[in-house]
Amino acid sequence: MDERAALDSLAGRIPAAGDDCAVVDGSVLTTDMLHESTDFPDGTTRYTAGWRAVGASLSDVAAMGASARAAVAVYAAPELDEEDLNAFVDGARDVCEACGAEYVGGDLDSHDEFTVTTTALGRTDDAVLRSGAEPGEAVCVTGRLGRSGAALRLFATGENDRANELFRFTPRIAASEVIAPHAGAMMDSSDGLARSLHQLAAASDCGFAVDTPLPVADAVGEVATDPAEKRELSVFFGEDFELVFTVPESELDAIREAAPVAITRIGSVVESGVTLDGDPLDDRGYTHG
Amino acid sequence: MDERAALDSLAGRIPAAGDDCAVVDGSVLTTDMLHESTDFPDGTTRYTAGWRAVGASLSDVAAMGASARAAVAVYAAPELDEEDLNAFVDGARDVCEACGAEYVGGDLDSHDEFTVTTTALGRTDDAVLRSGAEPGEAVCVTGRLGRSGAALRLFATGENDRANELFRFTPRIAASEVIAPHAGAMMDSSDGLARSLHQLAAASDCGFAVDTPLPVADAVGEVATDPAEKRELSVFFGEDFELVFTVPESELDAIREAAPVAITRIGSVVESGVTLDGDPLDDRGYTHG
Repeated sequence: MDERAALDSLAGRIPAAGDDCAVVDGSVLTTDMLHESTDFPDGTTRYTAGWRAVGASLSDVAAMGASARAAVAVYAAPELDEEDLNAFVDGARDVCEACGAEYVGGDLDSHDEFTVTTTALGRTDDAVLRSGAEPGEAVCVTGRLGRSGAALRLFATGENDRANELFRFTPRIAASEVIAPHAGAMMDSSDGLARSLHQLAAASDCGFAVDTPLPVADAVGEVATDPAEKRELSVFFGEDFELVFTVPESELDAIREAAPVAITRIGSVVESGVTLDGDPLDDRGYTHG
Repeated sequence: MDERAALDSLAGRIPAAGDDCAVVDGSVLTTDMLHESTDFPDGTTRYTAGWRAVGASLSDVAAMGASARAAVAVYAAPELDEEDLNAFVDGARDVCEACGAEYVGGDLDSHDEFTVTTTALGRTDDAVLRSGAEPGEAVCVTGRLGRSGAALRLFATGENDRANELFRFTPRIAASEVIAPHAGAMMDSSDGLARSLHQLAAASDCGFAVDTPLPVADAVGEVATDPAEKRELSVFFGEDFELVFTVPESELDAIREAAPVAITRIGSVVESGVTLDGDPLDDRGYTHG
């Protein structure tokens, strides 16, 4: 059974699960495990690892339209090197500070592979689910796609400073505060834009007609010249932690004006089918290890 | 740097950490990672693993005097076997149900060793810290000590049914509700009674004079006959998840009457030093892997 099949099998057994966070009377809660071999390429600093791991959980909080309150992490490594640990905690604290949350510690553990589990807590009285999209709404993304895919290429060629910088994304908590009151459905793009659209479509029982040009990070152009490769990095690779959301067309201008990040309308909610420039968009993306 | 030195090094950097849970405006949050090699002996069922892993986090919530609201878990295994996963989730749900909390899912992951990270969320407006013990108070424990140590011996001899049963402890959420309004200081005995007393003493700047007989689980007598071995299992081994707490002597009867579990007065809070029957009690216990 792969991860997706297992999640499907559990969906009926745990009603509160199945969105970016679980919702429990006004709180939202989310947890993720990341591993060195699959999530932190050679060259990733421990500061970046702390920022990115905790940021991934804060991104799930943003995806629910919630404010971020606190985060904890379990740090497990073959040995507990003080400098590494302090750098990790600095990254974790700084990403929390960037989101108005408090980093409140966690647990330490010995483990053969550097492994991190992060958990974030948020608050909202009106969570935005994946299931609220309505045909006729606009579908939008925050920021630009492809940063993480580009970072991976840069890590592979040893351009580690630039790669670390791209890896330290800003969780869209502040943008979410502006978007959430208007949004029909929302999630983050951690599994890639294509997977996110298919997941929103399945949860909302709708489709999406998306058109190029998409907002693509400049870094994608730096590492890829072939159009197919650019598309792979920006549409399928994922791990970008941007928000993908639907809103009534009439509210788009107000959101764009108030949001602290670029909001791009990439298409419309339709009755069924997920298309890019009229062609079916594959339901595939990054399967997290 | 071992885990204890690393925790000490972090204590100054993360003010909210250092107790059983972090406290964030009315919420308490705790996270722990457990591994097959160090926490789930051969013979532990996946149902027991789910119960015990989530129970350990719920025990931390109880140790703060908080009510338990929700728990999540990351389940990471070499392969995602449906039966194993469902058994784990059943155990996680059942221990939550026993504590009035909701199991709201989490994350799945591939990992070379079966590894679980659990996180629990609780609520209290008046958290009981490790730092509030005052000389003259009584020091008490809930339930009986040594269950987990005895279980380990039984796993080793293949008495798995009885061992699994002992491994599925009841987190003391209901007892905590009765104790918390009266308690000076409280924590759980996950690192053993001796370590817990030393940690409470350090946090409260006090000492403890503890006397035998201590409340010891019947199972300890079944697996150990030598008095030194019995003491090892009940005082030092830990992993029992009972509450260790201090209260004014005058309130002890009322607590005993209302608590849903036996409360044993094991000694008194004193100015300094931790003793058992007048002899210094070693500051050692189970160091979690």
